[in-house]
Amino acid sequence: MLKINLENSFVNTSEIKNMEPFIQSAHRVLHEGTGPGNDFIGWLDFASRIPNEEISRIKATAKKIQGNCEYFIVIGIGGSYLGAKSVIDALSHSFHNLLEDDQRKVPKIIYAGQNISGKYLRELTELIEKKDVSLLVISKSGTTTEPALSFRVLKEMVENKYGEESKDHIFAVTDGSKGALRQLADKESYESFVIPDNVGGRYSVITPVGLLPLAVMGINIEDFINGFVQGEKDYSSVNIEDNICYQYVAARNVLYRRNNNIELLVNYEPSLQYVSEWWKQLFGESEGKDGKGIFPGSVNFSTDLHSMGQFIQDGTKNLFETVIMVSDTAKDVAIKSNEENLDGLNYLSGKTLNYVNQKAFEGTLLAHVEGNVPNIILQMDKLDEYHLGNLMYFFMKACGVSGYLLGVNPFNQPGVEAYKTNMFRLLEKPGY
Amino acid sequence: MLKINLENSFVNTSEIKNMEPFIQSAHRVLHEGTGPGNDFIGWLDFASRIPNEEISRIKATAKKIQGNCEYFIVIGIGGSYLGAKSVIDALSHSFHNLLEDDQRKVPKIIYAGQNISGKYLRELTELIEKKDVSLLVISKSGTTTEPALSFRVLKEMVENKYGEESKDHIFAVTDGSKGALRQLADKESYESFVIPDNVGGRYSVITPVGLLPLAVMGINIEDFINGFVQGEKDYSSVNIEDNICYQYVAARNVLYRRNNNIELLVNYEPSLQYVSEWWKQLFGESEGKDGKGIFPGSVNFSTDLHSMGQFIQDGTKNLFETVIMVSDTAKDVAIKSNEENLDGLNYLSGKTLNYVNQKAFEGTLLAHVEGNVPNIILQMDKLDEYHLGNLMYFFMKACGVSGYLLGVNPFNQPGVEAYKTNMFRLLEKPGY
Repeated sequence: MLKINLENSFVNTSEIKNMEPFIQSAHRVLHEGTGPGNDFIGWLDFASRIPNEEISRIKATAKKIQGNCEYFIVIGIGGSYLGAKSVIDALSHSFHNLLEDDQRKVPKIIYAGQNISGKYLRELTELIEKKDVSLLVISKSGTTTEPALSFRVLKEMVENKYGEESKDHIFAVTDGSKGALRQLADKESYESFVIPDNVGGRYSVITPVGLLPLAVMGINIEDFINGFVQGEKDYSSVNIEDNICYQYVAARNVLYRRNNNIELLVNYEPSLQYVSEWWKQLFGESEGKDGKGIFPGSVNFSTDLHSMGQFIQDGTKNLFETVIMVSDTAKDVAIKSNEENLDGLNYLSGKTLNYVNQKAFEGTLLAHVEGNVPNIILQMDKLDEYHLGNLMYFFMKACGVSGYLLGVNPFNQPGVEAYKTNMFRLLEKPGY
Repeated sequence: MLKINLENSFVNTSEIKNMEPFIQSAHRVLHEGTGPGNDFIGWLDFASRIPNEEISRIKATAKKIQGNCEYFIVIGIGGSYLGAKSVIDALSHSFHNLLEDDQRKVPKIIYAGQNISGKYLRELTELIEKKDVSLLVISKSGTTTEPALSFRVLKEMVENKYGEESKDHIFAVTDGSKGALRQLADKESYESFVIPDNVGGRYSVITPVGLLPLAVMGINIEDFINGFVQGEKDYSSVNIEDNICYQYVAARNVLYRRNNNIELLVNYEPSLQYVSEWWKQLFGESEGKDGKGIFPGSVNFSTDLHSMGQFIQDGTKNLFETVIMVSDTAKDVAIKSNEENLDGLNYLSGKTLNYVNQKAFEGTLLAHVEGNVPNIILQMDKLDEYHLGNLMYFFMKACGVSGYLLGVNPFNQPGVEAYKTNMFRLLEKPGY
């Protein structure tokens, strides 16, 4: 199971212990539902409450989509795609979309509605013009500008392509009773799933928002859910010695109070890049308010040791690192001996890439600690559905408790409205 | 040509003017070559000195590669791939690798040697096992661990595939006279190009390091070079009123001294994501030393307004934004009217996505400025080879001058060695 190592965090045991009463207060506020945003804490035990029929219907719908398209287009922005993309990228073949049909087995996947670029949408239509496609539109309201624009364009394309059968190629995850997309889905008889009212976008990967695209991509959603359910148990203790999630909360808040106000999420597997993007939304949107919050950034190592490594090692000392390290990486490449050895790598022959990667991690840890960069290490046994689900629950729980500890509402996002209001006014939207 | 707008930078004209004497000193140190790192300023006028024969040979080699493979694999890390990838991503079709042969015209491109993941390399070999490939390995020494490991594995694969003809499928950009890769290239008669001694990795996009992969991908390298040449003129004046590059240097240094110690490079085109990654290496590795430097981060809007937007609007006030906005985006999608208008978007009918994108930019600018986030705006006329080359020279020149102004050597990266030394020791590399 997930392990934490705070030995190189520059935070000592007594500092962690000193935080315990405050973390316990935050724990109670969260679990008793007495804090601000308490109408958005459905994610806390959502995984253990998913009905079997819901899982069966998700899997049946996924099977239908797998069978009817070459391109599966997921339309959503923010929490409506980041959770799904992070898990799909982490667990799929690195070159999934480029594989031949017999290597691939499930559709190619493309994300849309996460930007307003004319180039991107035009080129997407060029790509899929002559292809079989299915659309999955994910939006609580159905009127968020970015996904609504892309869906309007792509829906017309699908309707031109399939006519009467269009409803077999359009799927929706949206509100249970109200909103534009719910209305449309009911009217057109799209197969649809419900975004629960008490789970916000950035906490929604465990709802159909995440589960349906995961299932389409061949990911075992029962294992993923089980990882969450296990997380509900693993990270429930109010005793900080028994709860690594709360140890993480304590350490990062101690560092923040010490003016380490940038947290870099670090990985050593390129497939984890979007787990970091998901994490950035989770923490940035939950904690970045009222003039407060740790700036969440991310780097992929060893790649970015050759770009951001210099700054981290030797630049302004205002950051700390939280490293996700995977113990058992299933696929590997052996390093062979080479007669000439011009590249000087023969000293590694008989070893594997992942062995070298592990040593890169250990060497970097030593270097950065020597450079006075605090390091929190999270060690995952494996990169699979179960362990990734568990990690995501770990971060969600940490984020809720950490937000309360900071004195903010970890479940709203009032600052996201400011640009929208201005944009609507400039676009002369009725009512603005 | 590139324009700057400092009206929302929270830095007034007199503050800019007050920086002029110091920027002039930094300008002289750079142009007269009297500062630290003065053996790495070849990039300053490299573009205007490229011999025509070199361009011809790059184009001829590119043509050869275009004709002999489905997959073009670029092996390099840090400055050896970020420049090329940033330009290729910015100027290619958003779904280049997924297009059919007749839509695509040039090979698919994959990057390797930029990580040590066994999964990534194993899956790359699965992808290309039965495909025609060409390798381009880019490394000054040929012994940098990440690219050397990947090259050793992929070279063996190519040799097994092509036997005697392998040398027609392996290309190198490396040192002119010394090092492992130069030795190998000469011995095996690989077509090869030279990385000049006086240009560091992060400044090397204008050398064959960038130009050869660009040419293979069908990008007009003459136009790209002309953008640089124009930059040499545009950003040469010592009078700050006449030099927007130095205005940018002044503004960001004023903000840094005011404790805005995170700079976010912002775009509104998803294809510019890797321009930001290139920029992060450029500034982070140049300025992040001796305990100093602005932390370089990046966001893609409007995508990340739905993840990092809350923090920027309303979180800790330690950041500023530098926005790249493109005036004329060639490809666009019109928004049509819809009878039912369930999504409420009919108020936009007759408009285009890029029009809405422009208003998203304007609305966000207003919102963030109201949230006390300084904004520096860089306006590009077009997203093409010429204007992108010009922008990159703008940033390179700004970085050199800004680094000297900060009191550091903008052309070394001593902090990158620390992890390597530790890693080599842990790997028991001979001599460590």
